[in-house]
Amino acid sequence: MSSNALQPDFLFSGGRVLAGAALALRDGKVASVGAPLASLDQAPLRLRGRAILPGLVSAHSHAFQRAIRGRTEYRTSQRDDFWTWREAMYAAAMRLSPDDLAAVSKLCFLEMARAGITAVGEFHYLHRDAQGRAYADPNELDLRVARAAREVGLRTVLLRVAYARAGFGVEENPRQRRFIEGSPDEYLRNLDALSAQVRGDPLLTVGAAPHSVRACPAEWIAPIAAEAKRRGFPLHLHVSEQPGEVAQCKAEHGLTPPLLLEKLGALHEQTTAVHAVHLDDEDIATLGRARATVCACPTTERNLGDGIVRADKLLAAGARISLGTDSEVQLAPLEDARALEYHLRLVEQQRAVLDPREGELCGLGARLYSFASEGGMQSLGIPGGALRVGEPADFLIVDLDDPSIAGVAADDLVAAVVFSLERTAIREVWVAGEPIVRDGRTGQEERVLSDYRAAIGRLWERA
Amino acid sequence: MSSNALQPDFLFSGGRVLAGAALALRDGKVASVGAPLASLDQAPLRLRGRAILPGLVSAHSHAFQRAIRGRTEYRTSQRDDFWTWREAMYAAAMRLSPDDLAAVSKLCFLEMARAGITAVGEFHYLHRDAQGRAYADPNELDLRVARAAREVGLRTVLLRVAYARAGFGVEENPRQRRFIEGSPDEYLRNLDALSAQVRGDPLLTVGAAPHSVRACPAEWIAPIAAEAKRRGFPLHLHVSEQPGEVAQCKAEHGLTPPLLLEKLGALHEQTTAVHAVHLDDEDIATLGRARATVCACPTTERNLGDGIVRADKLLAAGARISLGTDSEVQLAPLEDARALEYHLRLVEQQRAVLDPREGELCGLGARLYSFASEGGMQSLGIPGGALRVGEPADFLIVDLDDPSIAGVAADDLVAAVVFSLERTAIREVWVAGEPIVRDGRTGQEERVLSDYRAAIGRLWERA
Repeated sequence: MSSNALQPDFLFSGGRVLAGAALALRDGKVASVGAPLASLDQAPLRLRGRAILPGLVSAHSHAFQRAIRGRTEYRTSQRDDFWTWREAMYAAAMRLSPDDLAAVSKLCFLEMARAGITAVGEFHYLHRDAQGRAYADPNELDLRVARAAREVGLRTVLLRVAYARAGFGVEENPRQRRFIEGSPDEYLRNLDALSAQVRGDPLLTVGAAPHSVRACPAEWIAPIAAEAKRRGFPLHLHVSEQPGEVAQCKAEHGLTPPLLLEKLGALHEQTTAVHAVHLDDEDIATLGRARATVCACPTTERNLGDGIVRADKLLAAGARISLGTDSEVQLAPLEDARALEYHLRLVEQQRAVLDPREGELCGLGARLYSFASEGGMQSLGIPGGALRVGEPADFLIVDLDDPSIAGVAADDLVAAVVFSLERTAIREVWVAGEPIVRDGRTGQEERVLSDYRAAIGRLWERA
Repeated sequence: MSSNALQPDFLFSGGRVLAGAALALRDGKVASVGAPLASLDQAPLRLRGRAILPGLVSAHSHAFQRAIRGRTEYRTSQRDDFWTWREAMYAAAMRLSPDDLAAVSKLCFLEMARAGITAVGEFHYLHRDAQGRAYADPNELDLRVARAAREVGLRTVLLRVAYARAGFGVEENPRQRRFIEGSPDEYLRNLDALSAQVRGDPLLTVGAAPHSVRACPAEWIAPIAAEAKRRGFPLHLHVSEQPGEVAQCKAEHGLTPPLLLEKLGALHEQTTAVHAVHLDDEDIATLGRARATVCACPTTERNLGDGIVRADKLLAAGARISLGTDSEVQLAPLEDARALEYHLRLVEQQRAVLDPREGELCGLGARLYSFASEGGMQSLGIPGGALRVGEPADFLIVDLDDPSIAGVAADDLVAAVVFSLERTAIREVWVAGEPIVRDGRTGQEERVLSDYRAAIGRLWERA
């Protein structure tokens, strides 16, 4: 361990900005906040001109989609939208070899680390080979992606996806054959095997993820949700990202996706509904009553033209919020945090829409930051995210001399970080008390870039 | 001059990405594009793993507003909006001494340079002292701000603002007394004097800027527009940023702001209408018919809750687009470019909304980039912005190894830059053939930061 106590100018801990406080670490956790413990081996390392903030969390990631960044930004038809984009994404998904998948994912995770992300929920649905056959180890691809994240040093939750079909009454799509497994039982066997395979790495766990009500019928969602609950796994699903998906669900079940999930016992405090853009009032009330988390992915949702997450109404109803980088078109978790607020400002033509009501201690900046940190950890089933004593020592170290933040005072620190911080300011990133980024770099750049370029060359050559 | 020819992997020139082409420079301009001229003094400097793109332009900036970054992101009343934010901004504007104004502006311009901005249109309305008295030189503050930009190395257009009143039938606001001058004649005398004062610096010019139809009556706008035209100055005005401003204009003139400007002879190809958010169909047709430029400022407009610029409809009508950093809440011109498109995707629930129609050569990425480069230069009355032969040698050098862009091919370069590039990738910035940023830094950081901190300390102490 590099040092067991750090003393920056500002420390954002437990939702408050402390000036001059030391952060003491032990066994990968926060040992104390404030004056360093007498029992520490050494005086705290004084970090002048630096601030420490809790690590950021991407609670919804598809790392392989990094391979299509910048390659879908044009018109392909009369009306381009999520569904036309999805075909381009499937074209990449079909062609990735296990090695290429690992290489693409690793560059993506490396960029996450440099962006201040310390934990990722990888919603992974590529399980089979290009012909739709299971690999000798049905978790081959899942493990390759999980290992790529762990090699970069991220705290990782592999949300293993269950995928049954193209949709209700929707013709089979051969480009989905790498996603689909035979039955919920087969899926659960593979999930249990994966959980056993990753045991021993305290920073790598698993979660259950029926892809969506479109891709999973009720006969899959119900048993998977029940087994996830029994095992204490987080449960993630895409929910109401597109109007077409809501319409299909109503046609099949006579219910909207949130109401169907509630009926199937799949909506509770360990559930994360990803996107949740196209909701009616009853949907919002239902998600709130369940104390479910909505994982908003604004930088993706704006790119795909999905629409706007009504975080204001969801929070008022009792739901919680986390953030995800999803399609990885940008790895900018603070942009996700600010865009969540900004999209509401644009539709309401007001400012400070998500500012907590009077009487609450935390301000708007701290609240948005908490969605990106604590909200993400909660969504992934990991206690922590606020650098309180006993929580994981996952954090970033920000250069207060960076022009994007220079001159900030303790009171404005978190708002300035959320609304204005540039990546150039993120100098170090630590996970479980160990640095994974120093001086803005992971140290693995050379090989990761060269492997990525080789993979991308193979991928698009074959296009 | 450091080198008179550069040969990156990719060169974005004249709207096309060239692989392996050299960019030759002479007398601050582009001497040739392609194979280096035989007459050059030396072989081109090979920039491996680098791309060169035209410099970015902030066509609408209020540099002093950097002082309130992060300080207004909370709820102050039942309904927070542009108008409540404006009071916070005025509180800073009232208190800045000439030295403090220069120090705050300079940090802002330094960040612009590091963000890849090579030219700025500084829409400057602080002219008088805190008591509303003219300085001994009525252009004292204008010159301080212009010099701050020039010391950083930016190509600078000082858009000297005319401000007559709080509004039609609106009570006087004592916090505007530093903005207001006595008459259009006084304003024009000061503008002419400023133009003479900056003569001799080929990178510093002036423009005329009646603040808005709210702050200037017709008797100011008409003569200022006429004189600007006679002198060949660009003409900039805030137009229809807020519904309240449109309503006031209708009450006073029976016309919307664009129609009033047309009637006053203030709407033509040299006019830039800043914001232009709240437009009806006739407004859009009028701006288009005039071939006016609309300067969108999406990172500010989303922060202030102004609303969305309908760039799709404006372009279809014949208007042109430039981009501005405005309130400086972020200095991220590429975020402005992508947000212009993204806000339209969110309301339309489609992708590639601004993709040019079939038959046009340039793609969506190149089009959005051109708004930020060529569109800005055009808006400021400077030919260039696309690195064609004879145009100013203003450009940025991008590191193709940065994880935000790594693996990009020539075809995707500009889309990947617009949609995904992080500031860490911007390694050098050149203006008029000379570097102003090297290795991500201007070399002036230490003193600029220390002056900024001192100014901010004085500013908020007195709060």
